[in-house]
Amino acid sequence: MYIGIDLGGTNIAAGVVDSEGKILYKDSVKCNAGRHYSEIIKDMADLAKKITVDAGFALSDVEWVGIGSPGTCDIKNGILVYANNLNFYNVPMSDEFRKHFDVPVYIANDADAAAYGEAMAGAAKEVSDSVMVTLGTGVGGGFVLGNKLYNGFNNAGAELGHMIICHGGEKCTCGIDGCWEAYASATALIGQTKEAMEANPTSLMHEIAKKEGNVSARTAFDAAKAGDAAGKAVVDNYVKYVSLGIINIVNVFMPEKIIIGGGVSNEKDYLIEPIKEYIKDRVYCKTGNISKIEVAKLGNDAGIIGAAFLGRQYVSEV
Amino acid sequence: MYIGIDLGGTNIAAGVVDSEGKILYKDSVKCNAGRHYSEIIKDMADLAKKITVDAGFALSDVEWVGIGSPGTCDIKNGILVYANNLNFYNVPMSDEFRKHFDVPVYIANDADAAAYGEAMAGAAKEVSDSVMVTLGTGVGGGFVLGNKLYNGFNNAGAELGHMIICHGGEKCTCGIDGCWEAYASATALIGQTKEAMEANPTSLMHEIAKKEGNVSARTAFDAAKAGDAAGKAVVDNYVKYVSLGIINIVNVFMPEKIIIGGGVSNEKDYLIEPIKEYIKDRVYCKTGNISKIEVAKLGNDAGIIGAAFLGRQYVSEV
Repeated sequence: MYIGIDLGGTNIAAGVVDSEGKILYKDSVKCNAGRHYSEIIKDMADLAKKITVDAGFALSDVEWVGIGSPGTCDIKNGILVYANNLNFYNVPMSDEFRKHFDVPVYIANDADAAAYGEAMAGAAKEVSDSVMVTLGTGVGGGFVLGNKLYNGFNNAGAELGHMIICHGGEKCTCGIDGCWEAYASATALIGQTKEAMEANPTSLMHEIAKKEGNVSARTAFDAAKAGDAAGKAVVDNYVKYVSLGIINIVNVFMPEKIIIGGGVSNEKDYLIEPIKEYIKDRVYCKTGNISKIEVAKLGNDAGIIGAAFLGRQYVSEV
Repeated sequence: MYIGIDLGGTNIAAGVVDSEGKILYKDSVKCNAGRHYSEIIKDMADLAKKITVDAGFALSDVEWVGIGSPGTCDIKNGILVYANNLNFYNVPMSDEFRKHFDVPVYIANDADAAAYGEAMAGAAKEVSDSVMVTLGTGVGGGFVLGNKLYNGFNNAGAELGHMIICHGGEKCTCGIDGCWEAYASATALIGQTKEAMEANPTSLMHEIAKKEGNVSARTAFDAAKAGDAAGKAVVDNYVKYVSLGIINIVNVFMPEKIIIGGGVSNEKDYLIEPIKEYIKDRVYCKTGNISKIEVAKLGNDAGIIGAAFLGRQYVSEV
């Protein structure tokens, strides 16, 4: 069996994962970001050992440990090059971990780990090429090609949110105008919702937001489902924006599956079906047989499962 | 040694290629598109045998034949699914070829073959991941990842020209607005040049076009080099459009090299240097180490060399 660790700024979550991608046992501890990396990595190793024992295994049963971390990873050398929210720069993650628990250690960016989890044990399990798109605070991406993560020569690719889809348009947080993220993130959807609420004082969106206590990425979807015209207009427009990036992914990558995750993907068919409809006659494909689009299946577990499976990329037969 | 065939609507070109990617001998015959596929493929096989003998080899020296063809290929089954300008639909290319010359046959789309040629023996020879962009009548693309062609699950991907970079902008020939091709192809550059000439009746571009007999993709570049302000404005604007797509390729793929080919790439440093300058502070990369950008090296031979090397993807050691 394998251990997958999902390192976040708030929590360190870890799971014992079997060869089918099932989490047999999991636990978490606080990360307390800001501490020296040696302390945080020791906590990760202790947690890995603890869950192994708690799940009834011997430490020698652990084939390898995989770590999904925020930031840019040097996968080959097991180094976390840069992770802003952990204040980690050139941290020798694998070597440091092995001081406490001497097993093979594989690392990857957390979005990549989640994409790999969905690819190996989730929504894209049966295909070898998939692209995962995460619609959350930002727009993230992960590519699995030939059952291996692809992330550019320096592990800094797959920045799908910073694909320019509308030159001259909305300003992105990165400083460039027209990035997909500026239109298709949950943050962008909330902005679009607020704008529509201002223009439509009688929209049901006001009532929904009041009940929920805030305007969220769900507000417009909930209003649209209840028949509110202004809410539906926000959703239709947002679907168009998401679809523009999906068209680019289809035209450029043509993966067998595109998996949509992140908070907004909880809308499931209300999001996916209109995207399929929008892109159908707009993708550039003469044969008609295009990428399938589905929502992610593993939710928050994708990171642990994907991390646990990272070692599979380096073994020839599984 | 290998035989590479570059099948076009006008000519069938073929070359004897050694293991270093050097064309030892080449020849061509007319394609006479419109004929039944069996006739065209027989001519291809006859040409392959002829150049083998003419180059002083025995037929048994040919390790394999590779064919680069316009259209969509089913690489696995050696079938040309669809090639509009040849009027080919579901043509069993490999099987038909082997009726006349019984050697292993590999096929690929011609743009992919050219990208593979540049990757294996041209501008991207020393790297394993490269993206080739062709700025010609349209904008084409080819991806080589881990020394293998990547073209989507149905071999219909890598349509870089149909990446939307400016939603709501110029109409593309495919019917969608804002495709990269509508801004960055040689065709688009000619349109941009004509528009600027109309607005600037005293521009040097008029004189250059008159001398050349027409407005071409070179007109604005030639005027800019001679100090013409309107010509320089066209070039600057065109460079920006090309760069927007290059930024997307860097942010999404982050290949070790991006190779720019096609007619416009003959401008060499006059095209490449300002692109590098434009994208430098606009790509999304925190580590600063980004894809190198270079012009293609093999010119028209890329198709023959790439086709000849196609079989390398299927042998484990080369």
